[in-house]
Amino acid sequence: MTRTREECAALDAADPLAGFRAEFALPEGVIYLDGNSLGALPRRTPERVRELVEVEWGQQLIRSWNDAGWFALPHTLGARIAPLVGAAAGQVVVCDTTSVNLFKVLTAALRLRPGRRTVLAEQAAFPTDLYIAEGVTGLVEGTRSVLLPSAADLDGMLDEDVAVVLLSHVDYRTGELLDMAGITRRVQQAGALMIWDVCHSVGALPIELDACGVDFAVGCTYKYLNGGPGSPAFLYAAERHQAAAAQPLSGWFGHARPFDFEPGYEPLPGIGKFLTSSPSMLGQVALGASLDIWERADLQAVRAKSLALTDLFVELVEPLKLEVATPRASERRGSQIALRHPDGYPVVQALIERGVIGDFRAPDLMRFGFTPLYVGYRDVWDAAHHLAEVLESGEWRAERFNRRGAVT
Amino acid sequence: MTRTREECAALDAADPLAGFRAEFALPEGVIYLDGNSLGALPRRTPERVRELVEVEWGQQLIRSWNDAGWFALPHTLGARIAPLVGAAAGQVVVCDTTSVNLFKVLTAALRLRPGRRTVLAEQAAFPTDLYIAEGVTGLVEGTRSVLLPSAADLDGMLDEDVAVVLLSHVDYRTGELLDMAGITRRVQQAGALMIWDVCHSVGALPIELDACGVDFAVGCTYKYLNGGPGSPAFLYAAERHQAAAAQPLSGWFGHARPFDFEPGYEPLPGIGKFLTSSPSMLGQVALGASLDIWERADLQAVRAKSLALTDLFVELVEPLKLEVATPRASERRGSQIALRHPDGYPVVQALIERGVIGDFRAPDLMRFGFTPLYVGYRDVWDAAHHLAEVLESGEWRAERFNRRGAVT
Repeated sequence: MTRTREECAALDAADPLAGFRAEFALPEGVIYLDGNSLGALPRRTPERVRELVEVEWGQQLIRSWNDAGWFALPHTLGARIAPLVGAAAGQVVVCDTTSVNLFKVLTAALRLRPGRRTVLAEQAAFPTDLYIAEGVTGLVEGTRSVLLPSAADLDGMLDEDVAVVLLSHVDYRTGELLDMAGITRRVQQAGALMIWDVCHSVGALPIELDACGVDFAVGCTYKYLNGGPGSPAFLYAAERHQAAAAQPLSGWFGHARPFDFEPGYEPLPGIGKFLTSSPSMLGQVALGASLDIWERADLQAVRAKSLALTDLFVELVEPLKLEVATPRASERRGSQIALRHPDGYPVVQALIERGVIGDFRAPDLMRFGFTPLYVGYRDVWDAAHHLAEVLESGEWRAERFNRRGAVT
Repeated sequence: MTRTREECAALDAADPLAGFRAEFALPEGVIYLDGNSLGALPRRTPERVRELVEVEWGQQLIRSWNDAGWFALPHTLGARIAPLVGAAAGQVVVCDTTSVNLFKVLTAALRLRPGRRTVLAEQAAFPTDLYIAEGVTGLVEGTRSVLLPSAADLDGMLDEDVAVVLLSHVDYRTGELLDMAGITRRVQQAGALMIWDVCHSVGALPIELDACGVDFAVGCTYKYLNGGPGSPAFLYAAERHQAAAAQPLSGWFGHARPFDFEPGYEPLPGIGKFLTSSPSMLGQVALGASLDIWERADLQAVRAKSLALTDLFVELVEPLKLEVATPRASERRGSQIALRHPDGYPVVQALIERGVIGDFRAPDLMRFGFTPLYVGYRDVWDAAHHLAEVLESGEWRAERFNRRGAVT
């Protein structure tokens, strides 16, 4: 391998983000390269959750809806996520799941483009996005969902029937990063609205929803944002659309006067109309604890380190002669590296037994996520070293690595 | 007052459910009569949540989706709620919020009654149910939502255009309990499908969804079931409808093979098709801790004590000459008593200052919920005594009791 472990140690010593590692409670002996699936536990989260459970719920009980700010959390957490996605105030709320929020913005967007019938979504999107597009267009009379073979085919398919284009900013398998500004412009020039799924980019790189003129976006908080398993999702609706937008999951949290208990729905005037009902407070406060860290993290530094870590990993695994599915150009790459191997599943399992946790996506992708707040350069060296040993030794052929669980 | 505090102490001593009080971590000096809004904290929940956060998330990380059973929780928790609502296996899942689940079953029900256009829902329903009915019918071409002035008007409005009737089993304000068996039968005889909202009855009294032939039901777990603030909701779909039912929030958790990551949606064959996406694991495990208690609670004993507590409260407050909005007949009463008072808001605030926590619903209802697992007969006596003192003293007129928070 080209770089030595000592050189990597020197990079760690000079890393301006190195101090963040202590903010996370990672297990001993583990190199965690799956923060693009489930982010690590922030060290202060357990105490914040304990306080929520034992004091706010247990002792203050129902009064916490007012006194502890529970009722406002979907808004206050949204305001804290806004800078991470380049959004001015009043355009982000934290609620429900990515799929549910996509349902809301997709129906809202379709209604803003009456006369157009088509939702265009990339075939390689995380499948739940496609399933939700099917669900929406199956319900809204006269609309249809069409698969885009790849983002490169977009221009040829942007006809006057396209109401909405839905794309992932970073591909969940290959880690390819799309050109948000350019694609959004072309979609809007064709008269359609643009929805971005930023699940795999938020917290991994700077996002500029406002500057790119994006119409709507959805994202999750349990990957790079470290909100915890199943932590609440968020949605962005550009201020210019909020007055005219309407979404059908019109629950009481989005009502203009929820505590008047009126039988007729009247939405809040702004982003609040995208709320539906009571969120999990445990999930919301755990996310809040994680966002405390993000308030001190410089996204430009995060991006610089992400590119350095992923470059280093590609360089170190080059002798293994595996196909790198992730684009090499930095402007086309998120914060993960995907390597193809026909027996990727057992290879990943063998790595996990060695304490190097990545994951596998069918049919042949080994995914390694690099989260700059808690992964260092020596971790990358060690992970590449283990991968080389697993492949050279053939240990992945052992029967125990070939039994699949429900989640692979 | 007719009954003495000593007589109430004797009732507590003979109470077969008295032992459950020790399962909850209630604050000192508080009589908590708002468990119909947010249930109390089970004593073992903090440790279960700590284990989830620190061990399953923090140490086991992504592996817990398989190893800790996370992926199966919407099903396994659903199976544990099933006996509380009289449902045979395979008909209940725990996911999302009541509003989101109502959206799913309402759209599914409409599709099962093509040619019929009307959703009939009671004007006095908890408003989010009406708002969701508006949301669904606003989206599904040719359907409409019609308000039923009261459940008593149902027969006159059950014409051949009604596709679905949506009612609350227990009224959130008055505590009135509807006749689930009789109403379901009449609705189905008229060719419509019946959806029950059991938010205010689950855990308060036995529910017999299967025996009543109910089509669909939704409910929350943060009231009598003590799952915690914003804990996940559940939904019931009768087995006979599952094959034909389709719901549009068709996320990957409802897919037949979610980890094949196919671009086309193919639902799970059974109740699982009603799942959408990753639930809050903090919310799910907190609910699991609470359901441990419910496995030992006899719902017939819960119902008997609930009626005894509410009877006692009505008897004790009779000298105060307040209008009781809750039906006196036990077969028409849930587990709360609502008293009318034109200045109910400050009266409730004055009670809260004394440690008696109830709540207020506009325009004039003071609500007192009696949760048989942790409220005793002396508590009822003390609460009635405090209410009498607050009204006699006029202390509720103090300015501090008249400032309203966001959640009242």
